Amino acid sequence: MQIFEEWESEIRAYCRATPTVFKTASNARQTDESGKTYLDFFAGAGVLNFGHNNPKMKEALIEYIQNDGVAHSLDMYTTAKRAFIKKFVDTILKPRQMDYRLQFVGPTGTNAVEAALKLARRVTGRENVVAFHHAFHGMTLGSLAATSNAHFRNAAGVPLNNITHMAFGCETLCPGCKLGCGMSSLERMRDIYTDPASGVAKPAAFLVETIQAEGGVRIASQEWLLGVQQLARELGALFIVDDIQVGCGRTGPYFSFESFGLDPDIITLAKGIGGFGTPMAMNLNKPEHDKHWAPGEHTGTFRGQDLSFIAGTVALGYFDDPAFMADTERKGNIIAEALMAIAKKYPVCAVRGRGMMQAIEFPSGELSKAIASACFERGLLAAVCGSRGQVIKLIPPLTIPDDDLHEGLALFAQAVDSQMAEEPAKQEELAS
Amino acid sequence: MQIFEEWESEIRAYCRATPTVFKTASNARQTDESGKTYLDFFAGAGVLNFGHNNPKMKEALIEYIQNDGVAHSLDMYTTAKRAFIKKFVDTILKPRQMDYRLQFVGPTGTNAVEAALKLARRVTGRENVVAFHHAFHGMTLGSLAATSNAHFRNAAGVPLNNITHMAFGCETLCPGCKLGCGMSSLERMRDIYTDPASGVAKPAAFLVETIQAEGGVRIASQEWLLGVQQLARELGALFIVDDIQVGCGRTGPYFSFESFGLDPDIITLAKGIGGFGTPMAMNLNKPEHDKHWAPGEHTGTFRGQDLSFIAGTVALGYFDDPAFMADTERKGNIIAEALMAIAKKYPVCAVRGRGMMQAIEFPSGELSKAIASACFERGLLAAVCGSRGQVIKLIPPLTIPDDDLHEGLALFAQAVDSQMAEEPAKQEELAS
Amino acid sequence: MQIFEEWESEIRAYCRATPTVFKTASNARQTDESGKTYLDFFAGAGVLNFGHNNPKMKEALIEYIQNDGVAHSLDMYTTAKRAFIKKFVDTILKPRQMDYRLQFVGPTGTNAVEAALKLARRVTGRENVVAFHHAFHGMTLGSLAATSNAHFRNAAGVPLNNITHMAFGCETLCPGCKLGCGMSSLERMRDIYTDPASGVAKPAAFLVETIQAEGGVRIASQEWLLGVQQLARELGALFIVDDIQVGCGRTGPYFSFESFGLDPDIITLAKGIGGFGTPMAMNLNKPEHDKHWAPGEHTGTFRGQDLSFIAGTVALGYFDDPAFMADTERKGNIIAEALMAIAKKYPVCAVRGRGMMQAIEFPSGELSKAIASACFERGLLAAVCGSRGQVIKLIPPLTIPDDDLHEGLALFAQAVDSQMAEEPAKQEELAS
Amino acid sequence: MQIFEEWESEIRAYCRATPTVFKTASNARQTDESGKTYLDFFAGAGVLNFGHNNPKMKEALIEYIQNDGVAHSLDMYTTAKRAFIKKFVDTILKPRQMDYRLQFVGPTGTNAVEAALKLARRVTGRENVVAFHHAFHGMTLGSLAATSNAHFRNAAGVPLNNITHMAFGCETLCPGCKLGCGMSSLERMRDIYTDPASGVAKPAAFLVETIQAEGGVRIASQEWLLGVQQLARELGALFIVDDIQVGCGRTGPYFSFESFGLDPDIITLAKGIGGFGTPMAMNLNKPEHDKHWAPGEHTGTFRGQDLSFIAGTVALGYFDDPAFMADTERKGNIIAEALMAIAKKYPVCAVRGRGMMQAIEFPSGELSKAIASACFERGLLAAVCGSRGQVIKLIPPLTIPDDDLHEGLALFAQAVDSQMAEEPAKQEELAS
Repeated sequence: MQIFEEWESEIRAYCRATPTVFKTASNARQTDESGKTYLDFFAGAGVLNFGHNNPKMKEALIEYIQNDGVAHSLDMYTTAKRAFIKKFVDTILKPRQMDYRLQFVGPTGTNAVEAALKLARRVTGRENVVAFHHAFHGMTLGSLAATSNAHFRNAAGVPLNNITHMAFGCETLCPGCKLGCGMSSLERMRDIYTDPASGVAKPAAFLVETIQAEGGVRIASQEWLLGVQQLARELGALFIVDDIQVGCGRTGPYFSFESFGLDPDIITLAKGIGGFGTPMAMNLNKPEHDKHWAPGEHTGTFRGQDLSFIAGTVALGYFDDPAFMADTERKGNIIAEALMAIAKKYPVCAVRGRGMMQAIEFPSGELSKAIASACFERGLLAAVCGSRGQVIKLIPPLTIPDDDLHEGLALFAQAVDSQMAEEPAKQEELAS
Repeated sequence: MQIFEEWESEIRAYCRATPTVFKTASNARQTDESGKTYLDFFAGAGVLNFGHNNPKMKEALIEYIQNDGVAHSLDMYTTAKRAFIKKFVDTILKPRQMDYRLQFVGPTGTNAVEAALKLARRVTGRENVVAFHHAFHGMTLGSLAATSNAHFRNAAGVPLNNITHMAFGCETLCPGCKLGCGMSSLERMRDIYTDPASGVAKPAAFLVETIQAEGGVRIASQEWLLGVQQLARELGALFIVDDIQVGCGRTGPYFSFESFGLDPDIITLAKGIGGFGTPMAMNLNKPEHDKHWAPGEHTGTFRGQDLSFIAGTVALGYFDDPAFMADTERKGNIIAEALMAIAKKYPVCAVRGRGMMQAIEFPSGELSKAIASACFERGLLAAVCGSRGQVIKLIPPLTIPDDDLHEGLALFAQAVDSQMAEEPAKQEELAS
Repeated sequence: MQIFEEWESEIRAYCRATPTVFKTASNARQTDESGKTYLDFFAGAGVLNFGHNNPKMKEALIEYIQNDGVAHSLDMYTTAKRAFIKKFVDTILKPRQMDYRLQFVGPTGTNAVEAALKLARRVTGRENVVAFHHAFHGMTLGSLAATSNAHFRNAAGVPLNNITHMAFGCETLCPGCKLGCGMSSLERMRDIYTDPASGVAKPAAFLVETIQAEGGVRIASQEWLLGVQQLARELGALFIVDDIQVGCGRTGPYFSFESFGLDPDIITLAKGIGGFGTPMAMNLNKPEHDKHWAPGEHTGTFRGQDLSFIAGTVALGYFDDPAFMADTERKGNIIAEALMAIAKKYPVCAVRGRGMMQAIEFPSGELSKAIASACFERGLLAAVCGSRGQVIKLIPPLTIPDDDLHEGLALFAQAVDSQMAEEPAKQEELAS
Repeated sequence: MQIFEEWESEIRAYCRATPTVFKTASNARQTDESGKTYLDFFAGAGVLNFGHNNPKMKEALIEYIQNDGVAHSLDMYTTAKRAFIKKFVDTILKPRQMDYRLQFVGPTGTNAVEAALKLARRVTGRENVVAFHHAFHGMTLGSLAATSNAHFRNAAGVPLNNITHMAFGCETLCPGCKLGCGMSSLERMRDIYTDPASGVAKPAAFLVETIQAEGGVRIASQEWLLGVQQLARELGALFIVDDIQVGCGRTGPYFSFESFGLDPDIITLAKGIGGFGTPMAMNLNKPEHDKHWAPGEHTGTFRGQDLSFIAGTVALGYFDDPAFMADTERKGNIIAEALMAIAKKYPVCAVRGRGMMQAIEFPSGELSKAIASACFERGLLAAVCGSRGQVIKLIPPLTIPDDDLHEGLALFAQAVDSQMAEEPAKQEELAS
């Protein structure tokens, strides 16, 4: 590891919590160069929905490379891109009767958000966008303004304007949260935006995550989401769903919001869309908005990632199979039950989640970080999230075998015990 | 192509100038699904320095994938990443006695620029950054503010603050350019920044391209670059070189500025660094600046692209071989001579370039676009750049075989003739 | 009036509602050039607390001018300024045990607010300031950002940043107001400002009016004001009271908030402070904040208005007399009772006020403007306020004789009757 | 003076250089409470063009007050205002065949500039305004952005956006100035604003002082002013002349630019316009721009200052008399000659000026401040200006008697000698 410490930037972060050098990986397991194996309950921050080195994708990629398939194509047309578009339209859009234009943006989530914000501002001619407390939307200046964590915002070095953060409408309140209930403030927002003397101008868009993954797996209520969408419609603003981490099957259906009756103007996708871990991002724009783009207005060298198209097409195939979807539901429940057992034992903890994104909130960030560290020692990768790092989010590959799932959950429970046991007095105090 | 027209966003651009569907590609040739082959003098906007499907890279990638190498690793440590770092240090940094920390940012050039701007603002505690007329630095809000083309800027939808655009110091003046000479304004800038009543505050950084590739292959003079660096030092500002398109061997040496005596505080790299066309970006930060980062302040899901590390390590190998470098110089001269022959025939044209980035400026954007279109019809891919699209930039792979190079240049000359011949009167008028 | 219509700017406003040319004025009466007299229940938008051409002030001013007193002194020392400072300290500050430094700013309320915002930002090193829905703080770019009415904001032509508008804490809710109760949002604000991931940075200051005069005489509750002050203390932010329209005795005591237990960091004063109608503005800064100013950092040609010092010193004399204060209380009650009689007759109306600022809210701006117009025709000057102009505010001079007061109130009742009678059906509908 | 030191804000400035308490003033003399008399070569920073307590104005004001004339009228019509408008139209506009609408803004220069910027942004729909190095336009956030001195700008506490500072076109270069010649940069500006890839958008307006009074009496050349106006026309931008300090007869004709062939879109006036030292400001807007205002969009309590209208009408009377104008020309020459005699003696000094605004630049701000202090001790009031306070500006009342003028100039020469003599070595060094 000396080479990293000597030459890599101080900014490196995850590696500090997982101090080893990984060499290979397969489905839900990563192996380091000493041969030690780790169960991966983090899946590349939600990218590897179909596991490391998914065999079907490996095969397709190797064949593509061997046959000199185009690997990099800007926004020129390729057969690989066409196959991906066709598959996406046939598997995802048409069955759901969704009519969207696919915009291939720079291959990162932050780029997708930047493009969505540009389009919303173009369509409405307005500047301000509403985002929400505890939101995470990216690191470049436009999306960073919508991201709410001060740790990231303080690195901007310039004012982050044109975004207003408002209360998120949680399904259930996180412990100790007093940020206000989005649901109860919807009426107030309507009045603020229609009152000519509120001092607040009508927004270009509302930018929501249906589940704030980085924010600590805070789950929005359907009622609130519908309310925000309705408010957006009334105000002539766009309703944008950032489904980058919680879409692509991670939280149950393909889109995180499928059963909710939502009809977003723009949907941002990245992370899991490329399948294999190679970068890709894509926005779905309603046709009536998309036509406001002039050719080439939002560009980027790496928009045409054909390896991602190839693997992504394989990934989409999973969603043709209802049994696969049902199975992720089943596995999600297994994780949730395991976490609830922990929370029963340690009532200071709260469990939240949907599908294969399940999380447990601990009383402090120090504690959850100690537990994540104890996981690593035991051969389990799990990472913290939430405003103070107080939440551990379990997001193994959707394809994780049951044995690995159970083994990982057992390791997690041990890791929790090891840290909670060490501070029984404190726990009692917190629980009281 | 119907699927693209029906489902892809209106924003697609390059595909409109190259209306076919590509299927395979090898070194400097792309083949469409009908079997027609095109010589690629665009190389993925400067990404594919070592050709499409470079055989050494193919082999390394396939082996890596077959052996279940980690494909996606955030900023955790992997053996592939270590090998890349070691190779970069040994091949690039140490021989040049350069001491930098490697920051792996989100895998796009725009992300590299965003990170560089953050660091410069953090180090200096200042907000404003100086960029230059005709600069191109990316599409996300922070880098877009530094990009100067109104076509892109108008898509922002919000004010682009905290950047001041000043005169670029061209080696030779482009035809008709009256934007002022950067060289002659250096003294003025020094006084403006030191006068307490100029109304202009000291900047956090000067952000320069040594050659403005997208800006029309405008080449900065060494004298001006040294002057800007000196001014930055005097003002306590950082000197940032954006080498994303013109570095990695594209314009001769590894860095575009090697022979110039420059010593940048930050160097941004992307495009060619990953070798195969898979995304990657990396900043080189001087250690004394890098230490201002706190862990995880600028993050991103796709920072750990191990396929790019694998292929990028192969790419770095080319720079161990002085003969390879000499050969690109030779080929660059071949292109330059061919363009100068055209300019001799049509004196309204101007030729500029360095290494394997050579360009010819036509009297209008309409003309150059017509010529690029005529190239496409003849089986040659070449793209326009410059503030009005009036420049055609020839950037074939560095590895292009001589036969392909000559064939492509012949096609280019024919394409030029076809369009210039069509408007002899106009040409005469322009030349007068 | 032809000269005005031909040569004066389109922007003129009040004159459109009072289409005559005034010639003389005395106490609560203005006379136009045709000899028609108007009872003045507007008092120069709250400037003329001691009546037009107050005899004591006339005498002092004429004597001062005849004796060649310095009329204009920038911020040099004059005997007139010293007398004013001494009188202010002895009459206002010392009896209330208040310790403030007097800052003479440019002679307008907006300039006072600009200076206060600068000082708060300097002291805290923060940029954002919290103002409130329906606030009015002025027209220059810094204070305009804090003003909330879109009519004014839309004239800025540039983004109005660095101010956040939040819910005002009304004593009683205005009819139909759904902007949210400031009181109920105080806890939420505390959490937003202390949560590291709310996306909202700690503010430099809270800028409040205890009664939003222009906003429609919306009266803050003591509990809310104390809560905001407490929150400011906790966050290290300054608590600024804009007492420009409601201070100087207009709403009862000298400062509008005297009985509330408030201890503002900065108090802005203007309008009534100069006594005679000549311009003047003054901030009271706590010494620990004031010391952050460097000499001359906020300057302005007309800071030294000695005619205003002379008349202002006379004005301060009124506050030595408890009987005067008690009498304004009595008169305020007379107005309030008259308005409540109207509201009893027309239950669609709401009455609010304190001291000699009493107001009645009508169901619509059209109606209130029609009533103001009917007042003018009857010889009474009264003006509308509120976000939609739906409120008529009665603010006669504190020195108005009882006869004039009663006569004016009778005219007002007639004017209301004349307009309400005209739409009985509509009124019924509104009242239901 | 103890009361001031104990109770007045730290921000007070002029009084620190003139440590005495003034009591009376008449024409060009101020007398302090000890009876010591000072010749006033500062005239209230250019306000008191017709002297302290001008007898004609005194008489008019006293009569107006005695007869209960309306003193404060917002923007309602009064006979005093009508008389002022009529006089201004007849004396100033009609003889010069100028067609403007008179906008009475808040009674300060900064307010006039704020209103002008709003109107220019409204008319053009653009945000950015070009101002110039060393400009002074006021202290409120909109005008402060156009002011260039860092001492003032640093007090803002927020970014000052939407203004770009460019090179001023001096008639003759100030010693040591290297800020660039506005004249030589005009062509460059034209190209920057018309090049689609300069990164710089077309401006809403160019805001110029024909003579930068606070900036150190830097005099623009006619050629440059015409060039800027021409450029503004071409770009669809407004051409605004800030004549606040140098208009109203101070520099020769009524407007500072009369003989230049300029035709500004907006002219800002304040300072001398009110005559007596009571505040007033007024913009002249071309009718085709003025009509873009909606009633009441830029408002302010103290727009209707009838004492200023009364005295201002008297002031305008002076401009009916060609002999008066000729006499100020003669006196201006007397001052210029006296300063040139000093500069001849001390060649390190430079003399600049026009009409009754004459200035001398010393090698350093320390020296000029020492000289101003030596003036005060000798009974002469004179103040420094310029970016480093290195210039002393002599602006006595236009009405100063010849005896006073000569006496003051003699005192000034003595003061200079007293300080220059003290550092002969340094002076030699500076002169070399």
